[in-house]
Amino acid sequence: MDLPAYLTQRTALIDRALDGFLPRATVKPATIHKAMRYSLFAGGKRLRPVLTLAAAEACGGTLPAATPAACAVECIHTYSLIHDDLPCMDDDDLRRGRPTSHKVFGEGVAVLAGDALLTIAFEILAQASATARYPMPALIRELASASGSQWLIGGQVADLEGEGKKHTGTQLQYIHRCKTAALLTASIRLGAMSADATPARLAALTAFGQALGLAFQVIDDILDVTQTTEKLGKTAGKDVAATKATYPAVHGLARSRREAHRLTRAALTALAPFGSRAATLRALADYLLARDY
Amino acid sequence: MDLPAYLTQRTALIDRALDGFLPRATVKPATIHKAMRYSLFAGGKRLRPVLTLAAAEACGGTLPAATPAACAVECIHTYSLIHDDLPCMDDDDLRRGRPTSHKVFGEGVAVLAGDALLTIAFEILAQASATARYPMPALIRELASASGSQWLIGGQVADLEGEGKKHTGTQLQYIHRCKTAALLTASIRLGAMSADATPARLAALTAFGQALGLAFQVIDDILDVTQTTEKLGKTAGKDVAATKATYPAVHGLARSRREAHRLTRAALTALAPFGSRAATLRALADYLLARDY
Repeated sequence: MDLPAYLTQRTALIDRALDGFLPRATVKPATIHKAMRYSLFAGGKRLRPVLTLAAAEACGGTLPAATPAACAVECIHTYSLIHDDLPCMDDDDLRRGRPTSHKVFGEGVAVLAGDALLTIAFEILAQASATARYPMPALIRELASASGSQWLIGGQVADLEGEGKKHTGTQLQYIHRCKTAALLTASIRLGAMSADATPARLAALTAFGQALGLAFQVIDDILDVTQTTEKLGKTAGKDVAATKATYPAVHGLARSRREAHRLTRAALTALAPFGSRAATLRALADYLLARDY
Repeated sequence: MDLPAYLTQRTALIDRALDGFLPRATVKPATIHKAMRYSLFAGGKRLRPVLTLAAAEACGGTLPAATPAACAVECIHTYSLIHDDLPCMDDDDLRRGRPTSHKVFGEGVAVLAGDALLTIAFEILAQASATARYPMPALIRELASASGSQWLIGGQVADLEGEGKKHTGTQLQYIHRCKTAALLTASIRLGAMSADATPARLAALTAFGQALGLAFQVIDDILDVTQTTEKLGKTAGKDVAATKATYPAVHGLARSRREAHRLTRAALTALAPFGSRAATLRALADYLLARDY
C-alpha cells in the first residue's frame, strides 16, 4: 500500500472533521478559539486519530462512525502538549515547528486553550454513535480514564517528579505506559468500539496498542537524541538536558533500538487474528518503527 | 425550614459521594491525587451540587439519581478555581481560607490537578442514569458546553483580556454570565434532567438558574469590596486591585445591591410553576441574597 498517500488522505479527512467540530476562530471570545485552532492545526501527524480510523476499519466499521472518537483523542493529545510545554512544566518554546501556545498567546490563554480542548474532546465524543455493547458511558469512561490522573496526567506528574533523578527501567516503563501508551491504546480501542468489535477483537487490539504505544515512545526517545531540532519540529536533546526518563538514557541507544524492534514485533503478533483486515495497522506499525533514525 | 442544618447535611452527603468517586490519596502517583483532594475538600460551600440536588427534588427526582451530576459540577468548579488562581491568571495565594494549590504543590502539579479534576468530572457524569428524554450525550453536552470555550472558559478569557480596562455594563454582564451563571445554570439543569423533568419545568429552572447565577456574582462582587480577607477565605479587594470587571466598579454599591435584589426576585418568579415543591430552591435564593453584607 502507498502509506504516504494514505496518511495524506486520512490527515485531510481528520482535519476537515476537526474543523467542523471546533468553533470558528471568530466566535466570541475570539482569542480562545484562535488559540485552540493554532495548536490543533499546527501540522501534527494525527497518529492517534489515524489509528482510531484504521482500528475501526479492521473491525468492519465505517469512517463516519469512528470520526468523533478520532477527533476527541486528537483534542486530548493537543491539550496535553500545550500544558506540557508550559514554563511550569517542560518549558518548551517550539512544537510542531512553531512557537508554543504560551509563546504566542501568553501563559494564561495557553492554560485555558488546553482546558478548552480537553473539555471539547468530551463534547465531540458525545456525538459518537454508541452501540449496545459499547454504550456512551463506556466510551466516555475509556477516554477519561486514559487521559486521567492514573494514566496520561499521572505519567506527566511522575515525569515532573523524576526530573534530575536517576531512573530505573521499571520507573521508565511506568512513565511511558502512562504518558504515551495509554492514550494511544484508547485511540485504537475507541475505533474498535465504534465498529462494535467483538470482545476478542477488542482484546487483540488492546495488546496491539499497548505494545505499539511503548514502541512509539522508545523511538521518540531515540529521535530526541539522534535528530536535529529542525527535523523534529521540537527542541532536540531536550529530554537529555532535563535528565528526563528516556530509554537511551537508561538502556543506551543500541538496546533501545532492539527494544523498539521487539515491541513492534509484539504489536504485529497481536494482530494475527485479523488476517488481511489488519494490513493497514501493520503498515502503520512498520512505518512508525522506520521513522528515519 | 432550617437552612443551615439542611446545608450541613447536604454538604456532608456531597462530600461522601465525592470521596467515593475520587481515587484515594495513596493511589499512584500519590501527588496528583493528594492535590486533587486538597482543593476538592477545602471546605467549599458546595453551592452548585446543592442546587443540583434541590432542582432534582423540585422535579420529583431522587438524590441518588442526581448525585453523579452534582459531583461532576463540583469537580468542574474546583478545577476552574485552581487554574484561575495560577500566577499566570489571577495570581492568588489564598482560596477557601487555605494556600492555593500552586502554593502547596507547585505550578506544574496545580495545572495537572486542575486537568485531572476536569477530566474526572466527565467520568463521574458518565455514571449518571440517563433517561429517554435526556440521554447520556445530552448530559455530557450540557456540562461540556457550560464549562467550555464559549461559557466558563470564555468568561475567564474575557476577564483576563479586560483587566485594567474600563468596562461597560454590557461587557460586565457578558463576563458574569459566562464565568458564573452558565455553570450554575447547568448545575440546576442537570439536576432537573436526572429527574426526567418536563421541558416546561426545565425551561423554568433554566430561567431560575440564569437569574440566580447573575445575582450570585453581583453579591460576590459586593462582598469582595465590603468584606475582610479572613471572612471571605480569599483575598478581599482583589478584584478592585486588578481593576476587574465588577458590578460595584461599574454601577456603584447602591445600584449593585438593588440589582442583586431585582435578580433574586426574577429568580423567585421563575419558580412560580413549581408551587410548594420549590420551597428549598426559594430558601436557597433568599439565603444567597442575605449573605451577610
